[in-house]
Amino acid sequence: MPAPASFSNYIDTHAEAFIKRLGESVAIKSISSDARRRQDVITMGNWLNSQLNELGVETKLMDLGTHEMQGADAATPTSYHRASGERSDEEDGAGVWTLRRTACESFIAVFGITVLSLGNQALKTDGWKTDPFTLVVEEDSGRLIGRGSTDDKGPIMGWLNVIEAHKNLGIAMPVNMRFCFEGMEENGSEGLDECIQEEVKKGKEGWFDGVDCVCISDNYWLNTRTPALTYGLRGIAYFSINITGPGQDLHSGLFGRTVHEPMTDLIKLMGKLVDHNGAILIPGIDDMIPPHDEEELKLYQKMDYTIDDIEEAAGGKVALSSDKATVLMGRMRQAIPFPARDSGCILRDVKHWNFEAAKKAIEAVYKKTPDYTREGGSIPVTLTFAESLGVNVLLLPMGRADDGAHSTNEKLDRSNFIEGTKVLGTYLYEVGAAA
Amino acid sequence: MPAPASFSNYIDTHAEAFIKRLGESVAIKSISSDARRRQDVITMGNWLNSQLNELGVETKLMDLGTHEMQGADAATPTSYHRASGERSDEEDGAGVWTLRRTACESFIAVFGITVLSLGNQALKTDGWKTDPFTLVVEEDSGRLIGRGSTDDKGPIMGWLNVIEAHKNLGIAMPVNMRFCFEGMEENGSEGLDECIQEEVKKGKEGWFDGVDCVCISDNYWLNTRTPALTYGLRGIAYFSINITGPGQDLHSGLFGRTVHEPMTDLIKLMGKLVDHNGAILIPGIDDMIPPHDEEELKLYQKMDYTIDDIEEAAGGKVALSSDKATVLMGRMRQAIPFPARDSGCILRDVKHWNFEAAKKAIEAVYKKTPDYTREGGSIPVTLTFAESLGVNVLLLPMGRADDGAHSTNEKLDRSNFIEGTKVLGTYLYEVGAAA
Repeated sequence: MPAPASFSNYIDTHAEAFIKRLGESVAIKSISSDARRRQDVITMGNWLNSQLNELGVETKLMDLGTHEMQGADAATPTSYHRASGERSDEEDGAGVWTLRRTACESFIAVFGITVLSLGNQALKTDGWKTDPFTLVVEEDSGRLIGRGSTDDKGPIMGWLNVIEAHKNLGIAMPVNMRFCFEGMEENGSEGLDECIQEEVKKGKEGWFDGVDCVCISDNYWLNTRTPALTYGLRGIAYFSINITGPGQDLHSGLFGRTVHEPMTDLIKLMGKLVDHNGAILIPGIDDMIPPHDEEELKLYQKMDYTIDDIEEAAGGKVALSSDKATVLMGRMRQAIPFPARDSGCILRDVKHWNFEAAKKAIEAVYKKTPDYTREGGSIPVTLTFAESLGVNVLLLPMGRADDGAHSTNEKLDRSNFIEGTKVLGTYLYEVGAAA
Repeated sequence: MPAPASFSNYIDTHAEAFIKRLGESVAIKSISSDARRRQDVITMGNWLNSQLNELGVETKLMDLGTHEMQGADAATPTSYHRASGERSDEEDGAGVWTLRRTACESFIAVFGITVLSLGNQALKTDGWKTDPFTLVVEEDSGRLIGRGSTDDKGPIMGWLNVIEAHKNLGIAMPVNMRFCFEGMEENGSEGLDECIQEEVKKGKEGWFDGVDCVCISDNYWLNTRTPALTYGLRGIAYFSINITGPGQDLHSGLFGRTVHEPMTDLIKLMGKLVDHNGAILIPGIDDMIPPHDEEELKLYQKMDYTIDDIEEAAGGKVALSSDKATVLMGRMRQAIPFPARDSGCILRDVKHWNFEAAKKAIEAVYKKTPDYTREGGSIPVTLTFAESLGVNVLLLPMGRADDGAHSTNEKLDRSNFIEGTKVLGTYLYEVGAAA
């Protein structure tokens, strides 16, 4: 079931306004990794909340508790909020645009994460060519450059664009939706898992009651040409090494070469964790990863992907191998792909109607068959939703491989923003038809 | 020639006032490693300058130019000053106390470095038990605790104490003196070498004309019991490794295990620089160090020093060897003891009258024979003076091995401050007699 032509037209004719809104969101310096910017993260949540309210979305702000970071900065605001929205399922009335319950009763939850770049790449001196918090529209290249443009303000604005189009066109949303937005994903989203699990426990009274599938738009195409659907994630395993030694800081001149120094031993140990080809040398790590079979290997070989793609995106001749499948496996299956917990949860069934719907949407908008990818980014909430709700979780990326997420001069291509918005809307229609 | 009894009495009876002045200097947050504290370093120089002027010392503030640090903080004040003082060599007159030229015409230059701890150990959260910038007098232990107490405000105050005693007692200084104080030693003292060399070039008109020996008080005893005289320093050789790779910051999830990462290679390389026993593995480094002979070995074996001493000072069972001579050689001769430049300049002749004078002073005050040590700290100006002036340079430490220079809870023992002041004064009398 394709989206109505009026929807697609609306998106095209309102592109400038959409970019303006994206610019407003980029201007909020919600750097989750910087404790001094905590208030900006809260501001970002409140701004998003009011945007949703203006579009007729009911919201509830959740207190996720405190999140202490960076020791001495604990005096900065440490509480943050989750903005969650739902469309009322009442019929239209009194001129208020509300969500129409669809025949199939399916619900979809969309979890856009209001994520910003890691680290402190916010200064021009770090390599930004323009002010990171001013969205710059590069007319000739079509790039929308600004911190958080692609990770993850652009995709979130995509959902707002979809809702706005329906509201202003006076047409019903094809499915009911629940949203969940949260602003500290790059710093562990402390409290979010517990909050979601609490809501799930509430059953019929809970925020996520009736959700039939999940869609998260927080990752990237494999290259700069072909849209992708992502069905697997590798996770992150944190290990820590504590090395003890002297009881205090020591003067290097007085103690150097007379005592064992923890830094020396730490460097020695760290030098043994990874070999030059990127293989992790910690015993047992690779045993956690199921071996690939011939079929999986063929998947990698078929993907629209070259060594040039990765090196172009990385900005250097740095690929670990000249073999495409080896590099792709490094990204998609090596390291820690959660199999120890529940491989079924994280490697989603790509034949599920949720994926089929997204595939149809991509084919309708881009006239291309998507790459089916597994992704390096962990996005831990993926697993939380998969396990808590027991439904299919789709990752539907908006941006390209070279967007520079977490880096300087982060960008989202204008066409990805606009066509990507169309994909999101069309996807909802396909879900409504399929579920 | 011992110091007059009135001198020693003055030091004892004015100890509280001396500690108060040390407290005033500690209260100035002159952290040379923090660009935001540059103004405090200048304040420290100005405070010292006015103290010297009040004691009748003529001074000249030198502009050493700018010293940029920490990129974005370049807007902070970047010029600093050297406070240099000399006593006028006029006879007493009109009630003004001035320096009397001694018969032997010897001059001594004292180069106390207004050094503060490296790094940012200025916060209580870093492990300080008390406010680092408030000198705390621990009555039972006799410790004077405060940042910079021992490195190097205490020793500098020692010289002020000596001058004050002579001024207020109305007795002549036993020798003429030139001072040189500078506040950025922990950060390279940019501009100081050039400034000194300029003065030396001026000959008779220069600040250091007539200087016969040098005394620097900026290091420590080898243990907590025995005063030391230091006749050698090892230096610091800076090496840098540049590893290039991707053209920008990369998202670990997207690129991890697909590209060569500079950090991985850097860790691997750094892991090969030093072995577990602290030996430097860079080819050729050890060839720069002349081998020791039996006589030198005996020196180490005779020193009043045990493995317990170093482990007590370091606060942990961390000695690289259980052999005392091995550990002492690690501290005193390994690494980079400047031999490539001029080993004669840095390993001073301990039979020189300058050292003999200090030895007699220590014996007079402490009733102990000093350890003759070679030191780990680089104190680069040592070499500058040795080479520029061509005179003997003595390092006469005031503090103990466990003072915690550069570390948290830095302290100077009250007895080291007071008896150390007596040593400095007595040393001047011995120099006057010997030279």
